[in-house]
Amino acid sequence: MSNHNFPALKNDLFLRALKGEEVERPPVWMMRQAGRYLPQYMELRHKYSFFERVETPELACEITIQPIDELEPDAAIIFSDILTVPQALGIDVQMIPGKGPVMGNPIQTEDDAFSVLAENIPEKLHYVMDAITLTRRELNGRVPLIGFAGAPWTLFCYMVEGEGSKTFDKAKSFLYQYPEASRHVMRELTNATISYLNAQIDAGAQAVQLFDSWAGLLSPEDFNEWALPCLMEISASVKGVPMIIFAKGVWYALERLAYKSGAAALGLDWTISPEFAREKTGGNITLQGNFDPSHLLAPIKEIEQKTRRMIHRFGTRRYIANLGHGILPHVPVDHARAFVDTIKNYKQE
Amino acid sequence: MSNHNFPALKNDLFLRALKGEEVERPPVWMMRQAGRYLPQYMELRHKYSFFERVETPELACEITIQPIDELEPDAAIIFSDILTVPQALGIDVQMIPGKGPVMGNPIQTEDDAFSVLAENIPEKLHYVMDAITLTRRELNGRVPLIGFAGAPWTLFCYMVEGEGSKTFDKAKSFLYQYPEASRHVMRELTNATISYLNAQIDAGAQAVQLFDSWAGLLSPEDFNEWALPCLMEISASVKGVPMIIFAKGVWYALERLAYKSGAAALGLDWTISPEFAREKTGGNITLQGNFDPSHLLAPIKEIEQKTRRMIHRFGTRRYIANLGHGILPHVPVDHARAFVDTIKNYKQE
Repeated sequence: MSNHNFPALKNDLFLRALKGEEVERPPVWMMRQAGRYLPQYMELRHKYSFFERVETPELACEITIQPIDELEPDAAIIFSDILTVPQALGIDVQMIPGKGPVMGNPIQTEDDAFSVLAENIPEKLHYVMDAITLTRRELNGRVPLIGFAGAPWTLFCYMVEGEGSKTFDKAKSFLYQYPEASRHVMRELTNATISYLNAQIDAGAQAVQLFDSWAGLLSPEDFNEWALPCLMEISASVKGVPMIIFAKGVWYALERLAYKSGAAALGLDWTISPEFAREKTGGNITLQGNFDPSHLLAPIKEIEQKTRRMIHRFGTRRYIANLGHGILPHVPVDHARAFVDTIKNYKQE
Repeated sequence: MSNHNFPALKNDLFLRALKGEEVERPPVWMMRQAGRYLPQYMELRHKYSFFERVETPELACEITIQPIDELEPDAAIIFSDILTVPQALGIDVQMIPGKGPVMGNPIQTEDDAFSVLAENIPEKLHYVMDAITLTRRELNGRVPLIGFAGAPWTLFCYMVEGEGSKTFDKAKSFLYQYPEASRHVMRELTNATISYLNAQIDAGAQAVQLFDSWAGLLSPEDFNEWALPCLMEISASVKGVPMIIFAKGVWYALERLAYKSGAAALGLDWTISPEFAREKTGGNITLQGNFDPSHLLAPIKEIEQKTRRMIHRFGTRRYIANLGHGILPHVPVDHARAFVDTIKNYKQE
């Protein structure tokens, strides 16, 4: 836990829900809530490149707080990117507008893989810690601040594939062709992620979320072999604040994640029904999610109805309302507000 | 059933597995088995445009038979494309190399949607029926010939989105904004698909597969509301040969599909374990799948092991070995052959 002298927290709903305490209503935040649907974000996006925004603590802080000012959700998440870790491991990451991330030197050979080394991650990514400390001060206790990292399997996907993909089969086939070299990369990524998240916590993060965005591309057996052990090790080694694991698409692993990962909460995508998730996870872990992001493009009346129905199905206890994936760029701000407000106004029947 | 006088079928393993009869080993075919991994396909691809290949019965026939000659699987599937139906409904489809399909006039307004009309589909797509009749003759009874169509939800995705997408959120938001207009399009697509598949059967198709490739983008509730009713209606109205429904990603709907769709078989993607699928579907329906296509990039020894393990888990009865999605373009032919041969040489322990 951080040694800084931060302002006292005024809204602890999110942290109480993570601990499984009684709450008057579920807390709410949105993945990618600091993002392109916000006009104030777009202004900064026109002025500064992606990595300028990520690497300048003042900009990252401003962007993190924009949705807090605009929509008043119950948590902030630091504005950053999961590809900071591959960068710190020597991968050259370019962000191409309209295309997404492209690596200049992806892992193509076993030698490339074995040369990946996790060293001095907190030092190399000090700008993220600076942004967290600054943002925690600037938030002035309004809501807790979430730190995050990409999970090793998801980072491996980008580092080998060299760009975004629907199927990441270059990355998958690398696993099968070079299992030892792949295991080395996973180990380094796991170590890097542990020191990165612990440094974020030292810097002031009050919870952390681990994003395994491409977990669902793996078969259950491959997920168990390649992705899950990393999640478990990270969860066991990151100390002091609650961890949320969001492994998208792995409905089949919910039970194992709930009972074995040691996470405080599991993030759910929208293809998992609340009933299925509660049944598999046994009620002793907080669930977070899972509004279909494209439903925010429905008329406001329907957003309100669907949001209430979602809360009703999850229940108000051990539940954090969120989307099932990041908010889409073309969602009207009013629609995002309708989602947040419906949760904030929710009264148990 | 067709009135043509076709040659007698020599290998009926696939049809027997669809009926649930005893088989000496599971039959095998591969989704996209007529495709880019085959050098003989690439030769024709350099000479003829995509739509020349699809619309010229002699070319479609030659391409369909290429993998039968090369790998000797237990079924052929007619070379065509699911977007023939949107084309017949007046959507201009271009196939852009390296990008995929692009619609010149996607559905953008309610008026666009209401103007979709399913008329004379078999006449407009006569070249597909001609290709089927020709191929059935040319196959000379070696293996059965499968016809296919895209499911209405998946076709709707392309018709509204206007191109491929990871999330198809333009198409999804159209559903929520214009439910009546969307329902009209789904109805027309359902009618078009029914007359299209029945015409394929008249022309000689001995089984048909319905591809709902983007079903998994929907929440369970949306799938039940928008996609499933179309699948059920098509299944109930297509007569004379067994139907396989491949709704990718809808692990949550397997039970309903097994008990209510009337399909002879369900296709499975690789994220569904054989045990889960058997449990949910109750053993009275044939299952098809579900080798992870990227596993064909593993070393041959591993392909053989993983393939045997897959059969062992599904069992040899009521099972058709296949991939969990289409074969990838860069799979070596030897690897595809290792998959097919392992199944053909499988002996029950």
